[in-house]
Amino acid sequence: MASEDIKILISVIAKLPGLGPRSAARVALALIKQKETLMIPLSKAINSALILIKTCNICGNLDTLNPCNLCCDKRRDKSVICVVEDVADLWALERSSVFKGAYHVLGGTLSALDGVGPDDLNIPKLGQRATEPYVTEIILATNATVDGQITAHYIAERLRSSGVSISGLAHGIPIGGELDYLDDGTLSAALKSRHII
Amino acid sequence: MASEDIKILISVIAKLPGLGPRSAARVALALIKQKETLMIPLSKAINSALILIKTCNICGNLDTLNPCNLCCDKRRDKSVICVVEDVADLWALERSSVFKGAYHVLGGTLSALDGVGPDDLNIPKLGQRATEPYVTEIILATNATVDGQITAHYIAERLRSSGVSISGLAHGIPIGGELDYLDDGTLSAALKSRHII
Repeated sequence: MASEDIKILISVIAKLPGLGPRSAARVALALIKQKETLMIPLSKAINSALILIKTCNICGNLDTLNPCNLCCDKRRDKSVICVVEDVADLWALERSSVFKGAYHVLGGTLSALDGVGPDDLNIPKLGQRATEPYVTEIILATNATVDGQITAHYIAERLRSSGVSISGLAHGIPIGGELDYLDDGTLSAALKSRHII
Repeated sequence: MASEDIKILISVIAKLPGLGPRSAARVALALIKQKETLMIPLSKAINSALILIKTCNICGNLDTLNPCNLCCDKRRDKSVICVVEDVADLWALERSSVFKGAYHVLGGTLSALDGVGPDDLNIPKLGQRATEPYVTEIILATNATVDGQITAHYIAERLRSSGVSISGLAHGIPIGGELDYLDDGTLSAALKSRHII
């Protein structure tokens, strides 16, 4: 079918998350056809990201600066640290612009099956940050999955001695959610944490 | 949220077909995290595609060679030309490996609304190829959409004087298809073209 170079391009694109061989072929074709508007800008963006983007030494965020712009931002409240699994979760929280504290990116969850222990994640660094005198609260915002909750539980136990207040995100009905479509776990969590109106 | 360079990378990826802002952020993150296994190979593949891939002067296929390897292949039957809308369609036919003739890629369909006329497509070149003495048949394999069929009809009319035999793909029930799920058009085409068993 396609020439060797196109095949290589398709096979690399097919490794990206959410893309299979068919959609990768479509993307490759779009790239080749739209050299000026798509392929050259993508090539430039990848090359500059390759050189410039680093992992922040403090929080584990990805940025062109190290420490990252969130850690450097004087207006953010450094006394509250929000612990997330992944940079994508940090981005999601930043999109909502409700949190104005510091972050800590773990880089995954603990997993006995996959052999991921606390030292494979950014957890020891979090332990150090929790002992800083200005830190008062750590919010565990790992995903509400089994792995996420196990990780949150482990971190809560580990940080208990540091004396900082440790909190977790509320569970309940998502805004706009319909009861009929929600799972039993969410419904029972929402019922348990009901509040007086 | 993300730094400027990551934002640019995400916005370029979001322009690719089948990707939106969310999936582009996921792809960008995967690229940044897996520099060695994903980002560097993709950068290399794009850069070499950028330099090497050309449009074949004979058939309009994309390849590193010009004329392309299909046009150069001595084992292929050059007397039959299969006309397709797009390189993706050529790849689909090559995947099935049932056709061993030559191709002609139009690069789109005629469209009065979008102002695409015969000279914007690779049609004049097809007219030249049809007059070559060794060409005996032209198979119109444009899509079974309104635009595809209009384009096929136009080409059939235009090439009628050249004396080559002009054919089209059969319409009917796809292999593995269930009658209950097929549209009326397909069913009526299948019924009209029924054959004696």
